[in-house]
Amino acid sequence: MSTAAIVIIGNEILSAKVRDENGPFLARELRALGVDLRRIETVPDEIDLIVDALRRCRAVARWVFTSGGIGPTHDDVTVPAVAKALERRVVRDPDLEARLRAHYGTRLNAAHLRLAEIPEGAQLLSPPGAPFPILVADNVYVFPGVPEFLRAKFTALRETFRQAPIVLSSLFLSVGEGAIAEALNETVARFPALALGSYPKFDDSPYRVKLTLESRDAALVAAARAFLTERLPPGSILRVE
Amino acid sequence: MSTAAIVIIGNEILSAKVRDENGPFLARELRALGVDLRRIETVPDEIDLIVDALRRCRAVARWVFTSGGIGPTHDDVTVPAVAKALERRVVRDPDLEARLRAHYGTRLNAAHLRLAEIPEGAQLLSPPGAPFPILVADNVYVFPGVPEFLRAKFTALRETFRQAPIVLSSLFLSVGEGAIAEALNETVARFPALALGSYPKFDDSPYRVKLTLESRDAALVAAARAFLTERLPPGSILRVE
Repeated sequence: MSTAAIVIIGNEILSAKVRDENGPFLARELRALGVDLRRIETVPDEIDLIVDALRRCRAVARWVFTSGGIGPTHDDVTVPAVAKALERRVVRDPDLEARLRAHYGTRLNAAHLRLAEIPEGAQLLSPPGAPFPILVADNVYVFPGVPEFLRAKFTALRETFRQAPIVLSSLFLSVGEGAIAEALNETVARFPALALGSYPKFDDSPYRVKLTLESRDAALVAAARAFLTERLPPGSILRVE
Repeated sequence: MSTAAIVIIGNEILSAKVRDENGPFLARELRALGVDLRRIETVPDEIDLIVDALRRCRAVARWVFTSGGIGPTHDDVTVPAVAKALERRVVRDPDLEARLRAHYGTRLNAAHLRLAEIPEGAQLLSPPGAPFPILVADNVYVFPGVPEFLRAKFTALRETFRQAPIVLSSLFLSVGEGAIAEALNETVARFPALALGSYPKFDDSPYRVKLTLESRDAALVAAARAFLTERLPPGSILRVE
């Protein structure tokens, strides 16, 4: 089961002060890696809501990625939320503490030390290219909200998520969805393992509907495309990709 | 309680074929209207997952907006999902059916008629400027996924959601989050109704942290700002907005 879910944590996203870049970035990356992204939840900086989202995401996904809520201030509650969702204590990691003491010296305070807190038993990964250790608690990857840091951390790990690729074929049609719905119904009934998408276009696009046929099985996609093509209105296929 | 939640429905978003524009659009609009957006859930075109998201959103929000999954094909399951979440039947609306019969004439088929289906008891609103009737079932506003149609429908209704404005004051600081965390903790303890955000910057920005103080009560924001300013490191405030 190569599934993933994302929890975007941050009042700043919900209040539109910042537009989330991390959800779309991770969605693109996961797709390229052949991972099925099952949900994205965007929640406030509130422990109980984060815990609730994490539990739901863990129930449906092999990997859960969080974005945001990492830092020394009152609104950074992702680490205690991950700990609570996993029913673990929050502990201070000695290696992280040593790094912080080396960095801040005599300026080190209690707030800085919050950056050394992790769910008990969590791992700190340092793959090549990772600028900072990456916190992984069970199957939850705890990423920062700052897009350049999240990208650096994810990129350092990305090959560990790679799956068999998803094969995609697209058909561009000259007719509207109403004229093809029955053909689509027959196709999904005949090929239940096929992911079949239908996307209408309403502006002055050169096509009216784009159909997407997807599976990890190239032969299935080819067979489903042949089956569907026979059932579409004659001459309605403008282009195949 | 002027709260909202958004359910974005669509495999095409999760598989990164399309980048969602509707969540960010609605977040900006709701913010400008003084509405608190409490969560955004992005889910696949699967009835049970949509129902689950709708129930959760309805439990925390006065208004729930859905985007996508409206149409005549097999992957358009938002209307039955809304009906199921509200424990209502799906029925065919006679006015919508008459419109469809007038538009499609003899080409009308069963797929087209799915566009006339609504949850029993739902309203079809036609405020000035709305290009098509807007489906509202209890507190769920069912919007299409096509961004230009969603915008047209939301815009026709937007003033009905307007609340007292949220007052925002921002402080731009020359010091990092670790140096101010205690001052922030004292401020949220003293002013529990204040929404206080802390956003670090790590690139070559002219400031290191942006603080946001928000409330519907302008006097509260002013008092909290004065309280906080006294507790920040002397000279650390670069700019106030």
